[in-house]
Amino acid sequence: MANPSRQAVNFAAPRRFATAFKADCKETFFPDDPFHEMKHEKPLNKLKKTIQYFIPLFEWLPNYNLRLFRYDLLAGITITSLAIPQGISYAKLASIPPIYGLYSSFIPPFVYSIFGSSKHLAVGTVAACSLLLSETVGAKASPQDDPTLYLHLIFTATFFTGIFQTALGFLRLGILVDFLSHSTITGFMGGTAIIICLQQLKGMFGLIHFTTHTDVVSVLGAVFRHRNEWRWESAVVGIIFLAFLQFTRYLRQKRPKLFWVSAIAPMVVVVVGCFFAFFAHAEKHGIQIVGELKKGLNPPSIQYLNFDPQYLPVTVRAGLITGLIAMAEGIAIGRSFAIMKSEQTDGNKEMIAFGFMNIIGSFTSCYLTTGPFSKTAVNFNAGCRTAMSNVVMGFCMMLTLLFLAPLFRYTPLVALSAIIMSAMLGLINYDEMIHLFKVDKFDFVICMAAFLGVSFISMDVGLMLSVGLALLRALLYVARPAACKLGKIPNSSLYRDTEQYPGSTPIQGVLVLQLGSPIYFANSTYIRERVLRYIKEEQGVSDSKTDIIEHLLLDLSGVSSIDMTGIETFLELRRILDSKGIKLSIVNPRIEVLEKMTLAKFTDAIGKESFYLSIEDAVQNCRFSLHSSKTTMEEC
Amino acid sequence: MANPSRQAVNFAAPRRFATAFKADCKETFFPDDPFHEMKHEKPLNKLKKTIQYFIPLFEWLPNYNLRLFRYDLLAGITITSLAIPQGISYAKLASIPPIYGLYSSFIPPFVYSIFGSSKHLAVGTVAACSLLLSETVGAKASPQDDPTLYLHLIFTATFFTGIFQTALGFLRLGILVDFLSHSTITGFMGGTAIIICLQQLKGMFGLIHFTTHTDVVSVLGAVFRHRNEWRWESAVVGIIFLAFLQFTRYLRQKRPKLFWVSAIAPMVVVVVGCFFAFFAHAEKHGIQIVGELKKGLNPPSIQYLNFDPQYLPVTVRAGLITGLIAMAEGIAIGRSFAIMKSEQTDGNKEMIAFGFMNIIGSFTSCYLTTGPFSKTAVNFNAGCRTAMSNVVMGFCMMLTLLFLAPLFRYTPLVALSAIIMSAMLGLINYDEMIHLFKVDKFDFVICMAAFLGVSFISMDVGLMLSVGLALLRALLYVARPAACKLGKIPNSSLYRDTEQYPGSTPIQGVLVLQLGSPIYFANSTYIRERVLRYIKEEQGVSDSKTDIIEHLLLDLSGVSSIDMTGIETFLELRRILDSKGIKLSIVNPRIEVLEKMTLAKFTDAIGKESFYLSIEDAVQNCRFSLHSSKTTMEEC
Repeated sequence: MANPSRQAVNFAAPRRFATAFKADCKETFFPDDPFHEMKHEKPLNKLKKTIQYFIPLFEWLPNYNLRLFRYDLLAGITITSLAIPQGISYAKLASIPPIYGLYSSFIPPFVYSIFGSSKHLAVGTVAACSLLLSETVGAKASPQDDPTLYLHLIFTATFFTGIFQTALGFLRLGILVDFLSHSTITGFMGGTAIIICLQQLKGMFGLIHFTTHTDVVSVLGAVFRHRNEWRWESAVVGIIFLAFLQFTRYLRQKRPKLFWVSAIAPMVVVVVGCFFAFFAHAEKHGIQIVGELKKGLNPPSIQYLNFDPQYLPVTVRAGLITGLIAMAEGIAIGRSFAIMKSEQTDGNKEMIAFGFMNIIGSFTSCYLTTGPFSKTAVNFNAGCRTAMSNVVMGFCMMLTLLFLAPLFRYTPLVALSAIIMSAMLGLINYDEMIHLFKVDKFDFVICMAAFLGVSFISMDVGLMLSVGLALLRALLYVARPAACKLGKIPNSSLYRDTEQYPGSTPIQGVLVLQLGSPIYFANSTYIRERVLRYIKEEQGVSDSKTDIIEHLLLDLSGVSSIDMTGIETFLELRRILDSKGIKLSIVNPRIEVLEKMTLAKFTDAIGKESFYLSIEDAVQNCRFSLHSSKTTMEEC
Repeated sequence: MANPSRQAVNFAAPRRFATAFKADCKETFFPDDPFHEMKHEKPLNKLKKTIQYFIPLFEWLPNYNLRLFRYDLLAGITITSLAIPQGISYAKLASIPPIYGLYSSFIPPFVYSIFGSSKHLAVGTVAACSLLLSETVGAKASPQDDPTLYLHLIFTATFFTGIFQTALGFLRLGILVDFLSHSTITGFMGGTAIIICLQQLKGMFGLIHFTTHTDVVSVLGAVFRHRNEWRWESAVVGIIFLAFLQFTRYLRQKRPKLFWVSAIAPMVVVVVGCFFAFFAHAEKHGIQIVGELKKGLNPPSIQYLNFDPQYLPVTVRAGLITGLIAMAEGIAIGRSFAIMKSEQTDGNKEMIAFGFMNIIGSFTSCYLTTGPFSKTAVNFNAGCRTAMSNVVMGFCMMLTLLFLAPLFRYTPLVALSAIIMSAMLGLINYDEMIHLFKVDKFDFVICMAAFLGVSFISMDVGLMLSVGLALLRALLYVARPAACKLGKIPNSSLYRDTEQYPGSTPIQGVLVLQLGSPIYFANSTYIRERVLRYIKEEQGVSDSKTDIIEHLLLDLSGVSSIDMTGIETFLELRRILDSKGIKLSIVNPRIEVLEKMTLAKFTDAIGKESFYLSIEDAVQNCRFSLHSSKTTMEEC
């Protein structure tokens, strides 16, 4: 009966478990196949390449030259002018003394330049994680009542962040970052920007009393409850600074060449603010200043790491959550700039670099650092060529700490608030949200869950809510794999979705269904029900005898894997079909699926002759055996 | 340039959101399309069919006749003989007075016969859930120290089970049950059987003191710690009963016709045990008996439901977990027997029936009931035709409660232990575990997680561990969608995986990749990396100029959906490819994918002419534009 010309399905013996397992592990953890190029090298070269792989410094340093250094020097100085005001501002956001913000821009850049694989990433502290740290750790130890304990817990959390990031990197679990979707990040950033901006109202209005909560309702409540503390002098100065900063941003958008104006603008605000505060005796007019900043480099802080079981849960939790967010931001940003230059960064290597940065940082009085967006963008625009720009920034920060730090004591808090607000306003991505709403409603919901959750509940709850929804969607994707009915496109041997291609015609007596996505326990019941429903619908269309389905072809081209429950579902399906007098055939099973089917003896159960390589083959073959073949042949 | 004969991709306007949303919801919650047949009916008929849909009783009762009743009567009497000993035994397992086990076989069968859609399911209590209830609720209220409170909490948990099951049924969330995979259930059943068997050592050895823990280590520890309480008389009687029961099981396997011997064997054991205990004054020889059983029907228990906030967490938790397990068992069992007869059961309707059964049960002194495997199998083998066999069982139980209950007071506990052990030994499915090990190692791990978790930790931890692993696997499936390189199979227009079909040949200058499963945030980075690696590998094979890839074809036939992150990945990919001088084309996008691509303006970005309906079309077209076309044309 079989059509002699038909192409055979390859029933080669299944791969051994070890082989298949190794291949799966490689796909899961080493999708970028880092050692591929080294296979055919000599041992010495191999060693060299391996070292270069783990320590990217050795890759670019040997070819480094003065011409490249000129670019990096300029970029390094530019980002330093951003690092000083941002360092002080974000340290305030984390409720720790401002000097620690400066410390955090000294050691970590050196560490990153050794282990980091991105050429454009500029190291620094970030607003969102600073606030999240203060929110989480502050719940256990008050930064006002016990600042020393609070500071030590922050170092400990940073240490855990480092351990976590390094571990993920070594375990090649970059995959975790993939679960923070683009929509989640957009919403989270937007929500964070909102609450950070609102937090700055404290500085803007020169308030003394404030809330420790971060949600919109508490913060606005606190601002209006303390109306009596509002100082108009502070507000006026703040608005002037903010207007200046926003103007430079506007300028950058209009004339990208003038990016450096907006890059040094925060430094200008700080310097102008210092002079103003110093000469106008601002303190006496209700404009608070930063206060004393000690001269000198980072003191060691390794002895302060606090592993007291009482605080362990909070420091570990703060470390993990901020670590994950910092990593997601750092990796995503490094990647987007690399793409602009058609280069590639390695997520796992980046994680290890961030991890080392934070471990060593926690030993040397630094808190959480990563690759913030604003700084990296400035670095990129300033023309940096390698990670050397971070080294330059490190040296500049060293000089600042050694000689200039005390000068910044007059920085008005309102200037810092203006800098933070201006940075945050740029992070609310309205366009992206509208775009999401237009293209994918579920993505929009995921985004809004993060945005509203962060704004109105708290940062970690918002994030988890959004990630939870995204995972739910991922599970629904697999729980409800799209199945569709195929018809033949006239004058071709193509079979396509009849809903999508209304011109395609079904084949009499043969029902062709295409299944998508993996088949396994979570969707196997659904698949069985759906297939049976297709048959019922098909036979319900008309009552004539000729419309009875005699063959069911399942196109498994899109099914990438199957588990035991899936195979049992097929066996069950076959039993049901048998009782209805319908013959089941399988078209183009992929290698993993065919292997499992062979192992589970499903191929023997339905017979190897029921496997086809193409739908056309299968349909031709089915026609031979159709009871109602007369009418069918006429159609051909 | 375009090949004129090529088939066009259908770029029809995307469906409206409401339309697409409705279609998605229908697929998710109503995959069986229950109202499909009613569409074209008259209003009166429609009403009738709707009532019949929700209350299956009205579907079969009108056609019921005496001939059918003869079968159901026999089956009903047979399952009653099983219901009495099982009811008493499992009530002991749940640490409640045995009479409640009998109560639980009286009201629920009537409820099920009205709302249940399965013809073979026999209602009753189950061992696993009984033990789980006692483990969970017992942690908060001791059945020894405060038996009244404990009993009331068990009723409350049953009430919550009922509410939960009904709600899931009405919300059409049968999908939740799908997440308990076959492997999880095999492992869970095996582990439960082990610990329940070990629990019976208490009864077997006539121990008085025992542990409240259920794990293997605690139970064996307790058995050996109380060596001084061991009674050989009890053990001897127990072993004789067990041997008898196992022999009848063996008989059933050898001669399926004699199934009724094993069905009535427990009843025989109970009756013989009663006589033995009565005449031999067993109590005096260390063989404990059940003790007083009150005559009379179920007293109302609605007034005992305890919603005290102190106990609410434990009752709700117990209700949800046992409800889910009971439901999974009941639905799976109803389904497997329906399949043998080529009938279908509706998971959502079953859930509603179970829910009503447990709500009404909790009002009338019953505890958790579902469709246990052993009873259902007996019912099926005894030749039941409709749910009427449950009604018969209900009447028999009524008579038992009214007249016979006190007679069972002499039942020796050791007889109950033997009955439970014998039932449990049949639940450890060694063959299935070995089969899983051979076919799918990950499924085996999921199964073992449940088996060992239940045996050595606790029932709910074991279950959650296993479900967690299964979900992780589901997420990995989507996070690492199998991609493969396609080659042309000689003398055909088919393109298949080059790894699976070594005979297939790649096309010079054109790389064809097939992507499987949905593309979205969790796998989009992977997909980009993997695609770029394929290009790198391809170009690394030889250094000759002619081997340069000029076209990349992505076959999306197997991609059932895509989200924003996925589309952005494609845009990114295109930018990278552009910079390498490679042209990206898309082959056969499915309807959902094409819709999103159109909405996100991706189609405009890469141009509609880059979309093809078949690989062959795309390859033909690419050949026109190849720089190295001379050598390629010769090949054709």
